[in-house]
Amino acid sequence: MLTTRPATLDDAALITTHRRAMFAEIGKSKPEALDTMSLHFRPWVERMIVAGKYVGWIVEDGGKPVASAGFFELEWPPHPLDPAGEARGYLLNFWVEPSHRRRGLARELVKMAIAESRRRGFRVSTLHASDAGRPVYESVGFRGSGEMFFAEKDSSS
Amino acid sequence: MLTTRPATLDDAALITTHRRAMFAEIGKSKPEALDTMSLHFRPWVERMIVAGKYVGWIVEDGGKPVASAGFFELEWPPHPLDPAGEARGYLLNFWVEPSHRRRGLARELVKMAIAESRRRGFRVSTLHASDAGRPVYESVGFRGSGEMFFAEKDSSS
Repeated sequence: MLTTRPATLDDAALITTHRRAMFAEIGKSKPEALDTMSLHFRPWVERMIVAGKYVGWIVEDGGKPVASAGFFELEWPPHPLDPAGEARGYLLNFWVEPSHRRRGLARELVKMAIAESRRRGFRVSTLHASDAGRPVYESVGFRGSGEMFFAEKDSSS
Repeated sequence: MLTTRPATLDDAALITTHRRAMFAEIGKSKPEALDTMSLHFRPWVERMIVAGKYVGWIVEDGGKPVASAGFFELEWPPHPLDPAGEARGYLLNFWVEPSHRRRGLARELVKMAIAESRRRGFRVSTLHASDAGRPVYESVGFRGSGEMFFAEKDSSS
């Protein structure tokens, strides 16, 4: 039976494993970069859970984790879409084990994360979609933002 | 003569005016939303300048402001593009008065903001581009990120 529970500090390693698996599947990062990221992400997420800025959800099938997702409170300047707000929700670390895909788990996790954003009074939520994830996010009402990024070239990533 | 200087606390109103003009020109926001945003943005940017998290640049022509731009230190989880980092640069509030466009001012301001990101040790910088701004950012090395956003519908924006 599938159950969903909030993540605790004890889940920091699992969340890190899922984050790494997500980026590995996207296929743009070198293993060394993913190793370094994992090393630094675990204590980061522990600190953010303690600070109340990261909220996670773990989906289990018969007690075994099969999916998870996270919400992060992102500091943001007052913006026309939330003109009195100073933060937005950032959705991250969406991962569903291959054995449990195409059952709507990601969609349910997105809805829980949007609900968390609302609970905190934020009017905007953002995320970075992989090509595979985009249709799920679109179905819930997400659309492209026009964000651009610049990354230094001589990284190990 | 054109000169560029760092923004100070005394520039908070000017920065807010430029931010408002930028969103007004994009044309997607109602005036009421821009009013509310301006009311909240000015104290926000004052706090962030004091905290050292916002850096601005003002371009003047004979002592009169004709362009400006800002950099904000955005908290971010360790990511494959900056696997040991916990922040990225966010470039915002790029504004050039119509009288001073097509002279490369925006491009110079982008370069200054990327330099600020590097000074802080960040490997990634992001921004949200208008259709008009995109070619400038591309010319410096920015590319689309695949970010998506969800915004509550019943806003005044």
